Parts: sequence; structure tokens; C-alpha cells
Amino acid sequence: MTTDNAGPTRLSVNQETVRQLSIPALVQGVTALGITGIGLWRAPVQEYGVEAAAKLVRDAGLTVTSLCRGGFFTAADPDDRKAALADNRTAIEEAATLGTDTLVLVSGGLPAGDRDIAAARARVADAITELAPYAGERGVRLAIEPLHPMYASDRCVISTLGQALDIAERFPAEQVGVVVDTYHIWWDDQVGALIDRAGAAGRIASFQVADWITPLPEGVLLGRGQLGDGSIDLRWYRERVDATGFDGAIEVEIFNPRLWAKEGTEALAEIADRYVRHVF
Amino acid sequence: MTTDNAGPTRLSVNQETVRQLSIPALVQGVTALGITGIGLWRAPVQEYGVEAAAKLVRDAGLTVTSLCRGGFFTAADPDDRKAALADNRTAIEEAATLGTDTLVLVSGGLPAGDRDIAAARARVADAITELAPYAGERGVRLAIEPLHPMYASDRCVISTLGQALDIAERFPAEQVGVVVDTYHIWWDDQVGALIDRAGAAGRIASFQVADWITPLPEGVLLGRGQLGDGSIDLRWYRERVDATGFDGAIEVEIFNPRLWAKEGTEALAEIADRYVRHVF
Repeated sequence: MTTDNAGPTRLSVNQETVRQLSIPALVQGVTALGITGIGLWRAPVQEYGVEAAAKLVRDAGLTVTSLCRGGFFTAADPDDRKAALADNRTAIEEAATLGTDTLVLVSGGLPAGDRDIAAARARVADAITELAPYAGERGVRLAIEPLHPMYASDRCVISTLGQALDIAERFPAEQVGVVVDTYHIWWDDQVGALIDRAGAAGRIASFQVADWITPLPEGVLLGRGQLGDGSIDLRWYRERVDATGFDGAIEVEIFNPRLWAKEGTEALAEIADRYVRHVF
Repeated sequence: MTTDNAGPTRLSVNQETVRQLSIPALVQGVTALGITGIGLWRAPVQEYGVEAAAKLVRDAGLTVTSLCRGGFFTAADPDDRKAALADNRTAIEEAATLGTDTLVLVSGGLPAGDRDIAAARARVADAITELAPYAGERGVRLAIEPLHPMYASDRCVISTLGQALDIAERFPAEQVGVVVDTYHIWWDDQVGALIDRAGAAGRIASFQVADWITPLPEGVLLGRGQLGDGSIDLRWYRERVDATGFDGAIEVEIFNPRLWAKEGTEALAEIADRYVRHVF
């Protein structure tokens, strides 16, 4: 009975996975299960109050493993671009206030009517060049998240771990890293070597897990699978990431209406159970 | 008026793009527009009769630029695997009867409940090893089509042009090539170099075009965009492919309910018009 408070090892629950829970209910729920990490999103944190949320999680002894999200760097219009950079500086400050060292970046898609994806990618790299020192000075690392190629036009022109690393490696490792999210990269036949490369260079800023299930829903945004329900060998990923020397949090980030329809603490318990059975 | 019968240069219309047309109506429709190539699908050809379809297109002076499709090589069960190989031999014979030198392969996804994508990929390569000489002897080239990564679990574990080339290059170029289809590969930041590699090695067996539009529909199968409606710089692709020395047909393959709802010859005219404006 001495392990009563030892929850699932290294598990962190991303707030959006159980969006039905308020921030206090999320903190209470994970604490009750012995889970020590949470990932937060800007909008609900802003609504609750950034300072208040920071105090709540700090007092509960929780680690904020990431803040989601900065990014959306692909606007070609100068004013839109300036606004995006300003918003990202605010996101960096919010991350610092919350005590997390990781700001996840969703880089942005193609502007309406634009077909020049190479130029959009160049604008992403330029924006990170502007923001990386600002983040580094505040103890925050920018974590470039490659999103599944099905989001390339409307959410993120960075589609592979290789692409994310090619950009991250232009900057000091303490300023810019990458997100390894199984949902987005599982199809890539190069993924093992890319994880090795990311780990060897100390670039894994965040490790996230979700499963891949079909059929994909209209819009393909809310179709992530609960751990164990789909096609991804999640344990293989955990072992491969760990083999690089990574020993940080493993964050469960699932957008799924079925999970959102459950009572929040039941959803948390299901996540913890699936995590133990399929990841750790 | 001397160019009356000169249709859109190098255009081929894939049968599935205008599935509302019977084979005779398709042949008549493309001929009226001066289009000289068509791509065929096995099921409607079998229904019409393979020999009869072959005679019809031959008498009309059309080139069959591809037959779709062989593949679905990923079954782990020995009987299922044997059946798949037998069906592919039939597909090769049908291609030879139709007078086309190209059989498009959709390699197959993961068997139900299976999470070992590396093993599924190995089974694809093994099947091609068995079939390539059989195809070569009949003047048919197997064309490995990388499908967009969103189809990796249920349709095709070959997700990039690089992966397709890695397999194709194990075989003689006259036996195995690849399909360059803009819809499936446009998101890949390595795509230009991969097209160069495919072209230099004489591996481009088929060049297909469709545009990328969002939001994707449920199931993500019928969401391809009419040329010019989406995010892909189609002319860039045509020029890049041609720069490798490729001078074959450019096949329009779009699965889109809006296009299918149009009267067939109007759909053909729209395709020819968009092709001239956005591809050639």
C-alpha cells in the first residue's frame, strides 16, 4: 500500500483531452489519480486567469508539461504578421508565468488563395528566428510540432519530424525543440531514425500520444483515438523515445467527442488505465 | 481552324473522374474534345467486357494511359495473400489486353487489429517481387502509388514518393515504376528532389493531377479538388516532372461528387478547360 499515491509513471494529461473539466476540476482529478503533469491551453487559462491558474497548479504540486499553443506564422500580410508575432510573445510570457518550459507551436497553413507552400514554410522559420531568443531569455523553449500532412493547407505547413528538426537545428537546443506526437507522425517510414536524431540532439521538447482510428470525421480535427483503439504501436514509440535518453513527461492529447461526452473523472481514469496498458 | 482536332496537349482523363459516363460515352466524349488518352478502372471494364473495351478504345485511336488498380498486398493470412496475388496476375493480364503499359498499385493498409506497419510494408515489397517479372513479360509495368498519409491505416502503407522509389528501385525500371499524383504528395517538403530522382531513373510510370481542397469530407475519400480549386501549384508540378525528361500523359484523376453530379460531357469540358488554365 506504499504506492497508493504513485500514479501512472510520467503521465501528463493535456487539458484538451478532458475539456469538459474546469481547471480546478482538472487539477483535483489528476491529483486524485496520482498524475503529476498537465498540459494547458491558452484560451481556458486566459479565461480562468493566468496568474490564478499558475498558483493553482503550483499549490497542487503539478508540473505544467506544455502550453498550447503559439504559432500561426504564415500570414503574408505585414500587419497580420506583426500581430502574430506579438501574440506569440504574449504566449511565451504566459508559459513563463505558468512555470512551463515548453510552448507548443502550430505553425499555420497557407493563406487563403495562396499556393506557395515553400514561401509559407520560409515565413515559419523567419518567425521562429525572431522569437527564439525572446523565449530563451524567459526560460521557455519553442516546440515545433509537425502536424499530420492532412493539415498542411489549413493548419500547419510543417508536416514531418524531419522538417521540424531541419528548422529547430538552426537554433540553440535550449531555445527551440520539436514535439514528437504519435498521431501526426506514425505513418512516416523514416520516423524511427528521426526520433533518434531528435533525441540525440536533445531536441525532444514534448512527447505526446494519441491513437489513429478511422473513418476520419468531416474536417479531420476531432478524430483522434483513445490509446489502444487504433493502429499505432504506442509502446514502440515510448521505448524508442526513451532509448534516446528522454525521461520527460508523456502527454496524452486526444480530441475526441466520445471522450468529451464522458463524466470528466471517468475520462481521466480511462486515460490512466489505457496509458498503463498501451504506453508504459 | 487547322487545330480543331488538337485537344489539350497530353491530357488523359481517368474514368473515375467522370464515373457518370459509360465506357462508350467516355470514349465518344473525350474523342469529341480531341483528348487522346484515358485511364481505366478494372470494375467497370470487367462489367463492359475487357476484350470489348479494348476493341472500343483501340478503334477510337485512344491510348489507355493506366489501369487502376492492382495491389492490396498487406494481408497476413496466407490464403488471403494467395488470393491477392492471383487477382493481381489477372489485373496484369487485363492491362495487357487493354494495351496499357501501366498497372497502378494501391498497396493496401493494415489488417484489422494489426499495428505492425513495418511488417505490412515488407509484405508489399515481397508481393511486388513475386509479380514484377510476370508483369514485365506481358509488357506491363507495376506503378507503385504512394497514397496520402491519411490513408496509411486503411488503404496504403506506402505514404511518400521516397518510400515508393525505395521499393521500385529494387527492380528493373521496365518492370516497376511509381505514380506521381499531386494530391497525395503535395505536402512533402522533399517532393521536388524526389520527382527529380524518379525522373532521372526513368521511374515515372504515371503522372496524375488533382487539387487539394478543405474541409475534407468524412472518410476523406471523395474530397479531391477540381484543378485550380485548391492549394496545389499544379503547373509547378508539371514543369518539374517535364524537366526530368518525362513527356507522357498527364492524367486527371479526381473523386468528387460535385463533378459526378454534372452532365458527363460538361464535366469533361470543364476538366479540359481547367487543365489548360492550371496545368499546361
